Order: sequence, then C-alpha cells, then structure tokens
Amino acid sequence: MAISASSCTPANELPHVVILGGGFAGLSAARALGKAPVRVTLLDRKNHHVFQPLLYQVATAALNPGDIAYPIRSVLSRQANVRTLLGECQRIDVEKRVVETREGAIPYDYLLVATGATHSYFGKPQWEAWAPGLKTVEDALEVRRRVLSAFEVAERESDPAKLRAALTFVVVGAGPTGVELAGALSEIGRETVARDFRSFDPRSLRVLLVEGTDRVLPPFHPGLSAKAKAQLERLGVEVLLQSKVTNIDCTGVWIGDVHVPARTVLWAAGVAASPLGRTIGVPTDRAGRVLVEPDLSVPGHPEVFVVGDLMSREQDGRPVPGVAPAAIQSGRAAAANIARRAAGKATRPFRYRDKGSLATIGRAAGVGQIGGARLSGFVAWWIWWCVHIAYLIGYRSRLVVMMGWAFQYFAFSRGARLITGAVWEPSPAAPANPPAVPPPAASVVEPREPVGAGR
Amino acid sequence: MAISASSCTPANELPHVVILGGGFAGLSAARALGKAPVRVTLLDRKNHHVFQPLLYQVATAALNPGDIAYPIRSVLSRQANVRTLLGECQRIDVEKRVVETREGAIPYDYLLVATGATHSYFGKPQWEAWAPGLKTVEDALEVRRRVLSAFEVAERESDPAKLRAALTFVVVGAGPTGVELAGALSEIGRETVARDFRSFDPRSLRVLLVEGTDRVLPPFHPGLSAKAKAQLERLGVEVLLQSKVTNIDCTGVWIGDVHVPARTVLWAAGVAASPLGRTIGVPTDRAGRVLVEPDLSVPGHPEVFVVGDLMSREQDGRPVPGVAPAAIQSGRAAAANIARRAAGKATRPFRYRDKGSLATIGRAAGVGQIGGARLSGFVAWWIWWCVHIAYLIGYRSRLVVMMGWAFQYFAFSRGARLITGAVWEPSPAAPANPPAVPPPAASVVEPREPVGAGR
Repeated sequence: MAISASSCTPANELPHVVILGGGFAGLSAARALGKAPVRVTLLDRKNHHVFQPLLYQVATAALNPGDIAYPIRSVLSRQANVRTLLGECQRIDVEKRVVETREGAIPYDYLLVATGATHSYFGKPQWEAWAPGLKTVEDALEVRRRVLSAFEVAERESDPAKLRAALTFVVVGAGPTGVELAGALSEIGRETVARDFRSFDPRSLRVLLVEGTDRVLPPFHPGLSAKAKAQLERLGVEVLLQSKVTNIDCTGVWIGDVHVPARTVLWAAGVAASPLGRTIGVPTDRAGRVLVEPDLSVPGHPEVFVVGDLMSREQDGRPVPGVAPAAIQSGRAAAANIARRAAGKATRPFRYRDKGSLATIGRAAGVGQIGGARLSGFVAWWIWWCVHIAYLIGYRSRLVVMMGWAFQYFAFSRGARLITGAVWEPSPAAPANPPAVPPPAASVVEPREPVGAGR
Repeated sequence: MAISASSCTPANELPHVVILGGGFAGLSAARALGKAPVRVTLLDRKNHHVFQPLLYQVATAALNPGDIAYPIRSVLSRQANVRTLLGECQRIDVEKRVVETREGAIPYDYLLVATGATHSYFGKPQWEAWAPGLKTVEDALEVRRRVLSAFEVAERESDPAKLRAALTFVVVGAGPTGVELAGALSEIGRETVARDFRSFDPRSLRVLLVEGTDRVLPPFHPGLSAKAKAQLERLGVEVLLQSKVTNIDCTGVWIGDVHVPARTVLWAAGVAASPLGRTIGVPTDRAGRVLVEPDLSVPGHPEVFVVGDLMSREQDGRPVPGVAPAAIQSGRAAAANIARRAAGKATRPFRYRDKGSLATIGRAAGVGQIGGARLSGFVAWWIWWCVHIAYLIGYRSRLVVMMGWAFQYFAFSRGARLITGAVWEPSPAAPANPPAVPPPAASVVEPREPVGAGR
C-alpha cells in the first residue's frame, strides 16, 4: 500500500516536501514552509513535540508531561499546506525518492531528515536497563518513577546497607542535563522529602555526579564550570571529576574499580545520531551524523536535506553543536533552501549564530555565557527560566510552567510526584549478574551532550 | 520481617490505627484522626490519591494526571501522628490483628479498611483487554492513548470499513462516567479533531452510549434522565437504551446480536468491591461488599471498620451509594468511632447525608438534583465544576484545573493530548478470536456505578 500524501491537498501538482521528525528542527522547517508553494507531510513516531530542555523538570516531578509536550498536528493545524502523520520511517530510498514506513511508502520531491539523536552507552547497551537517559516523555516518566520509588523504598527499609543504596543517586555525565538533574535530585531529597517522609534522615541522601573530563559543563568557560561545581556542592551534590564509570548493574555503579551501591542511576553522558542517517547512503561521522554540504543538502542529492542533531557540520573549525538553537536555525535554513530550489533559485549556505549558553542548577542558581558576558547564580537562573518560557509553545504551557516555577521557588513544592505503574525494582534482568571483578574501563570521557541557550 | 510501625513515633504506647487505602474514605479518616491520641499508618499500593470524579478529564486529554492526583504522604505531611507506607495488603488476619503485606506484617489495634471498588465485567474478565474502565491514573492514560490513537489511525486509513471502525467509539454504561466520557468524546471528535486532522470528515464520527436499563443516569429523577439524553443527542451521541452488550473483542462489540465494528470500546458499566473484603471473614453482599454494623465496624470485631465503596449498608431501606460524599462521610464517622472507642466511650451510628447528585455532559451542559431542586443545562454544568474544584486538594490543582476548564470552554482546547507509549492496536491477544455466532447474552443491566454530587 502506498500512502497517498496528496489525497487531501487541493494542488496536487505542487512539489511534495516530506519532513521526518517533529523535534525543534523538523517543526521549525514545517513552519518556515507555511507560505511556500509546496505540499508538506511531517512524519513522526510520536504524536507530540517535546520541549526537551524542560524534560528534567518532568523527571524530577515538577511538571506534568502535558505542560511541555504538544500534539504536532495542533501546532501545525492552521497551516493548510501541512499534513501530519504518525508513523516511523524505517528506511530512506534516495534513488526511488520514497521514505518507507510500516504502513507504506511515501514519495517525496524534497526530503528533510530531522530525526535527531538518542542515548549512547558507549558500546554498553545493557547499561540502559539500570541507567535510563532523558530524551522522551516516556524516559522522563521512567526516571520520575525510579526517583520517587527510591524514597518510598527507603521509608520502609530497615536494613542499613539497602537504605544507603536506596538513598544514593548517581548521575553519569555533567553536561547541562546531568547538572540540572543532580541539582534537582539533591533539592528534592533535602527539602520535599524532609517534610513528607518519617523514617529516614534526609541528610543521609547522597547525589553523585560523575564526569569523565576535568570539569562540569565542559563546553562552558572554565571559570563558569568552577562556579557551577561550587553551586552544586552547596546543594549537597558530590561532584566526581575525571572519573570513569566502568560498569552499571542492578546493584549500582563502578567508578574506576570502586563499587558504589545505588538504587537509582541516571544516564546523561552520551548521545548518538538517529540510525536513519546511515540509510541515506552518504558519509557519516563517527557518531553516525550525516556530513552535509554548506546548504545542508547531502552530497549527490540536492533534494535531500539533513538538519538538527543528525547533521554534522563544521563552522570556523568547530562543529555546530547539537543544541536547540542550532536545530531551529538549521531547520529554517533548509526549509528556505527547499523553497528556493523549488522556485528554480540557488540555495544559500547555512551559518549558525551562537546566541549563548545557559544551564540551571537547583532552585536559584545557574551559569550562563551570552555574547561576551558571563553570568552565574540567581541572574543566570532567572534568565534561564525566562528564555525557556519564551520558547515554549502556547500560552497555556507558558502559564502552567511559570506557575510550576513559582511553586518550586516559593513553596519548595513539586506538583507532579506521581508514580505511575508499579514501584520500580532493580533486577538483574537480561544482562549477567555483577561480575566479581569489574570489567575493563569503558571510556566515559567526552560527554557529547548538547549544550546551549535554548538547548 | 515485621515492619515496625512505631519506630518513628515518640509515643509507642498509643493505640495503632492502620488504614488500608488512600482514596476519599481512607484519606478523610486519616485526617479526622489528626488530633486523636493514636498512631496512624496509612497503607496504599499507589503513592497518590486520585480525585476520581475528574479522571474522565485525563482520559479525554483535557487534564494532566498530576493535576488531579497528589502524593498521599504530602497531603498528610503536616500530621505528625500519621505515617504513610507504599505497599499492598494481601490479607487481613483479624485473629492475630495484623495486615499482611509482601514486605511483612503490620500489627494494628484498630483497622480501617477503605480499599474501595474496581471494575466488574459481569463474569467476562476477558473483555477488559478491549474495553478498559476508568478507576486509576493508569486506566485514564490507557483510555487517552486509545482515543488519540484512533484518530491518528483514521488520518492515514484508506480502507472505508477500517476507517469507520477507527471513528466509532462505544461507551458501555450510562452512569455519570459513561455520560461524561461519551459527551467529551463527541466534542473532541467534532471540534478538536476537525481543526487538527486533514484526511477524514469529523462528521463521520460515531459515539455510541450503550445502556442496559431504560434511561441514562438511572439514579437520577426520570425527568433529568430525559434531559440528559436530549443533551447527549444534541452533542451527536447515539444513546442506545435497553441494549445489552453480549460480546467484546478486538473487532468491536456485539449489541444484542448486532456486531458494531469499533476500534475503541470503553467500560463504564460495573463495579465490584475490592477482594480484600472477603479476607476479613465476615458476611459480604453479592458484589463482595462487607455488611457493616451501624457504627461501621464488622460483626464480631469491634476494632475493624469498613468504609467507602467497600462497605454495604442500608439506610431508610436504600443502600448507601458508592459515591465520594458517602466515602468521605463514612471515613470520618469511622475515625470518630475509633477515637471514641480508644477513649473508652461508646461508638455512634453512621448516618449518610445525601447532598445531591450532579453529572456533566460535554462543554456546557449537565443535570443535577440538589435537595428538592432539579437543574439542567448550563447551570448544572457550572455548579458541577464549582463543586469539583472546591473539593480538589491544593491551590495549585485548583488553579490548573480551573485553567483547563476555561481553555476547554473558550478555546475548545485540550491541553494534554499526548500518546505516551506506542499507538494502541487492538489485537486478538489471549482470548479467542471473534466467534462466528455471538455467545449467549450476558446481562449488562443494572449498572452499579457510583452516582452523586461529589462522586
């Protein structure tokens, strides 16, 4: 069965643009094509766009998923030339110019691939079961379930060793997500939990932030990294630098050859490009990202564009970072180039404009570099929230997220502390039991996590 | 291992009250014991209390789970004599005076059982896979997933029969939940969907409300039932009265011997008491509810009380209904009787005060009977929302739910239209494939669903 992409558009003779992925890049591209004389089909395997920079707020029970995720087709509902389809592209056939889905093939005249990135466990996929990452709404709900379950288990635990493991949280990777998670966990443990639980001493909570390089937030200026570390330590986070995670299982993590018993381990260390990039048949970099031309098309196929976290592009000798502003800018640039090409004009090269980077640390701290200025503490935290609320889609989300922010600040309260599903229990699961001797060190250096202002 | 319930309370000699269940009845009882000279342990298998009357709003994508569910231990955090435990009681041993959990036995001096009710499929448990009910947050998310998935599938479906099945929604049972679900589904389909989807005609949507008795909202005055039916029909719902569902499978439902192909079937027809009631060893009614004494204790065990949906009690020749106000009132009454008994005083009989009943139908309609007055239309709908917002716990929830209400009314917008997990696909699953000839009719008369003002 071939899906007819044209059945509902009046002008069947217009060129058909297929966009794969409804993240920052794909959505920006679809919006930028609103006035262009093309028909657009946006395909995503989820029905919603996720505002990823606030996902850690869902994971730490401060926001509901619906506050930061929107149905893609609603976002685009006023744009008459766009059709949204829920489905997954399995393969791209650039020769036949079709994308293959389980429900059939979709032909295109222009293709924009914006399927982004996923977690990378540096060749240890078995770690994922015990150390979930944070890319989707489902990930965030899973992290929330584990974090809240740990406190519930601690409340009824009488064995001191098990109690210690239940109250030990390890975050692997000190990019922005890792820093934000660690700060929020420490605050939850010391403030929210102190009021609600009776049996254990919140001061016995341990939050470890493990980083392979010599500082937190490596893409930031070293001075800001030092400030961020001090702010984390003030919140009670133990920051372990130049530390390699060598194994993870149901009992906890190994840092170097030291075993740290921990019930909750969270992964914020590595990203890998969507596997779809490799099906295009053009060169990719080590992480699977597609090397694009200056106009963001792929070599030999001027009708195929790759944008966002899936693209690999150098600018002024440095890679364009995998951050939200770069995704938005590249999505728009590729959309403009498609419109130019459809009109018989020449394409223009893409240029990334770095607007700065911000990271937040707990309830009223953060760091940022904007233009030449370096900020830290309350000011950075305040700007972080303003920027993120401004970028949210829809008035309702902005209101709700602002309310959540105010409640956290003034009432130390988190409004979404639900465990949906059962209490999480770590179990040996499919992978083998903990080895007596830790395996040889796997490199956890080079966190490749996206960092940036809108991240 | 025995869980020490006393390890964290200063006064170990105080009587220990164990409350099973953190619904309306259990929570009200725990609060009512706040000032009493007792130690209280509240055990629930979820970490949250759910405001069930608004669950259908989560199921129909208007509210987030976090807006109507709260961590039980937060609700009770200021009450120093209460400890909250997450866990499930498997059996009550009234002779040894312990409740048995997977983590150990919890001894009690007084026991208050408030574990409520669950769905009943009238002896056809296999129907549950294709027709979920609406009792928990997880249920509501599952219903939401199925409803939203149906529209997504319709958007890309080209086969007319499959398209018709995707756009057919059957709600079984026309108590308040069934009426509310049917009204909301019809509105979603005709308003929200009309704007967001491109391929199908929203007018081809069918919402069927199937009821065994001769009217909708059977516990209401017949005049109000007629008004409710007219309001539903104005919203485009097809109301089928005196109709029996004789089978449900992955292809749809059989109403009498007519097969109605439908992708989405929702169950709002029957409730059965929590199975824990039968482990007490005292007489239960046909639905498994425990027959209680006038003071809400069980025969022969003056230290054991049963309240809420799990209790069976006649008053003035009519059963006390399984509604939220009755749960709250009985929880408080049993708590007061425990305090009296602990102080060596005589207990008092429970008397249910009926404050009236309300049901809402779609965006600006409803029916209600309060005292002698009968209301319908906009006024009933408005009072319904005011009562429900007043009963919500916490200012934040009230604000957010009020906002959600306003957005629905003024913008026809629903803020939580996420499909979490994969798109739902009906599959034959464990039970057998659809029989060629429908099986003999199972009675779906007598919907036992709770009805009432605070429901």
